[in-house]
Amino acid sequence: MDRLIEAIERMRNPSVIGLDPTPQLVPSQLIASYADEVAAMVEEPEEIAALQLATAYFAFNRAIIDAVSDIVPAVKPQIAMYEALGPAGVDAYAMTCEYAQECGLYVIGDIKRGDIGSTASAYAHHLTGVPALPGHDSGSDTGHGCAEGPDDPWHEDAITVNPYFGADGVMPFVEAARHSGKDIFVLVHTSNPSSAQLQELELKDGGMVHERVARLVESWGSSTRGSYGYSAVGGVYGATFAAKAPSVRASLPHTMLLVPGYGAQGGTAADVADLFDTDGRGAIVSSSRGIIGAWRHADRYDDSSSADESLSLVADSARLAAVDMRDALRSAVYR
Amino acid sequence: MDRLIEAIERMRNPSVIGLDPTPQLVPSQLIASYADEVAAMVEEPEEIAALQLATAYFAFNRAIIDAVSDIVPAVKPQIAMYEALGPAGVDAYAMTCEYAQECGLYVIGDIKRGDIGSTASAYAHHLTGVPALPGHDSGSDTGHGCAEGPDDPWHEDAITVNPYFGADGVMPFVEAARHSGKDIFVLVHTSNPSSAQLQELELKDGGMVHERVARLVESWGSSTRGSYGYSAVGGVYGATFAAKAPSVRASLPHTMLLVPGYGAQGGTAADVADLFDTDGRGAIVSSSRGIIGAWRHADRYDDSSSADESLSLVADSARLAAVDMRDALRSAVYR
Repeated sequence: MDRLIEAIERMRNPSVIGLDPTPQLVPSQLIASYADEVAAMVEEPEEIAALQLATAYFAFNRAIIDAVSDIVPAVKPQIAMYEALGPAGVDAYAMTCEYAQECGLYVIGDIKRGDIGSTASAYAHHLTGVPALPGHDSGSDTGHGCAEGPDDPWHEDAITVNPYFGADGVMPFVEAARHSGKDIFVLVHTSNPSSAQLQELELKDGGMVHERVARLVESWGSSTRGSYGYSAVGGVYGATFAAKAPSVRASLPHTMLLVPGYGAQGGTAADVADLFDTDGRGAIVSSSRGIIGAWRHADRYDDSSSADESLSLVADSARLAAVDMRDALRSAVYR
Repeated sequence: MDRLIEAIERMRNPSVIGLDPTPQLVPSQLIASYADEVAAMVEEPEEIAALQLATAYFAFNRAIIDAVSDIVPAVKPQIAMYEALGPAGVDAYAMTCEYAQECGLYVIGDIKRGDIGSTASAYAHHLTGVPALPGHDSGSDTGHGCAEGPDDPWHEDAITVNPYFGADGVMPFVEAARHSGKDIFVLVHTSNPSSAQLQELELKDGGMVHERVARLVESWGSSTRGSYGYSAVGGVYGATFAAKAPSVRASLPHTMLLVPGYGAQGGTAADVADLFDTDGRGAIVSSSRGIIGAWRHADRYDDSSSADESLSLVADSARLAAVDMRDALRSAVYR
């Protein structure tokens, strides 16, 4: 987790921008501008919508990344938005991650994977790269001039993980994180209203399900602690549960928290301040719609503007919103 | 769920074959046979391993599908195995689903997705197809000659869903299933040893977490019941918890069970028999390694056999193993 913490300190900005495009969050003229190019590329007409949206998503993300990469340490693409488009969208997801890494950003792949051990080991290749071909050493030499380790097609520095399977579904990700120098964030208490249905069930032995998960997360990460005391196993904790923040921080002394729910979901900088430790470390706050959709509330927006004009407005608005969020978090956290 | 139940009855076979290839489960000579073709296609040498494995996985799956499509009702590709290869693997996953549907099989996409409501709605496009372009009616007419509804790039008839987020993370999938005439299977009690860490936590109000999830699954499906009394919301229940099978069946009267853990994970036909109702309905049992890896235990196998010979052995062995499983389930279930 050292790399993320150091990136946050360089920017003095504990925030991450969610790159979660939808057909509504991307200017329609930008999407329309790819119609002819895409129609000339596809084999079947029904494939046009997916490829047109995927192409627009990538252009949209690139504009936002260019606009914020000098002020935010990290981005968090949500793979669901891309899977909605099928494999063409998944390509746009991976290209977005790659572009963000090239711009120096730490990339949190919000993929929330989880399964039984053998399957979790397959998912863990998100972190460790493509398995070696039979008869070849693990990625060290494919016999085709590639001696730099396995291909890393996902370009993620961390991924989010679902804990429902317990240890044998999580440890393959922990091992992969350790092996690759990357990180994971395990869901503890999510930001949505109905998270209470499972996560707040009260246990016979005391406490709630999410508190038990928190203890497991601490233990799963115990052998992977870095220079700042935080392990490679972070936790996801919603900004919408502000009242519990001090006890959450205390119960997870070695767990970096990824905090969704800021902005559009209702969480404020004051709500999340207690999730940070006394050094101002220990959490990174995520906002998506509030940043990437900020252009929709800009005075400059006009339906008749061109694709390029709309993209420039997206970029400018995202930067302004990212600066606002950074400054609000700085005031609340670096006390 | 009617389509799946009727497919099972036509075959008199309540089993589903997991299409979960790994570099070890696919004959090495098959993988090697694509080396030159793939090397000529890729732009960067490090991309060879992923594309070579993805090409071999698809050929392997096709051979198995061809060998079993007249005796099994369904297949269940596990997307993790394909994601391990990056986007090239995801293409092979979608191509596998498409090929299986073309062969008349019901396809359960084992993707175990789950997230907050707005994100779950994006994942739910696995079932409903690609979102419409802005300004177009939802898939009814793209203006490009496609008037048959939205593009369906994933080719899944059902998907598996993780319940950790509670109702607002699951209902978008339920709505998508209803809208598309497809199904979902929500994780209740998974087959792995450490599932107990969360799923068997005892609750203050009595019962365990997985029993509470079972009740939620029944309620989430209540408005989607089909001709046989089973809703569009199934549950995943591991064959490794045989002792509880009668009470599980009784507590989930409208929930079709997808039962992993048969074969390689230790579950037997006798273990799963009590998960069926008195009409021999209500469950479908999954096996992966026991079927797709059966060739490794065949007398005919020889390292020096050709790629074609190895593929033919894969197909023959899978069919034999699938017949064995069918017959064992028939004896145990159709009493």
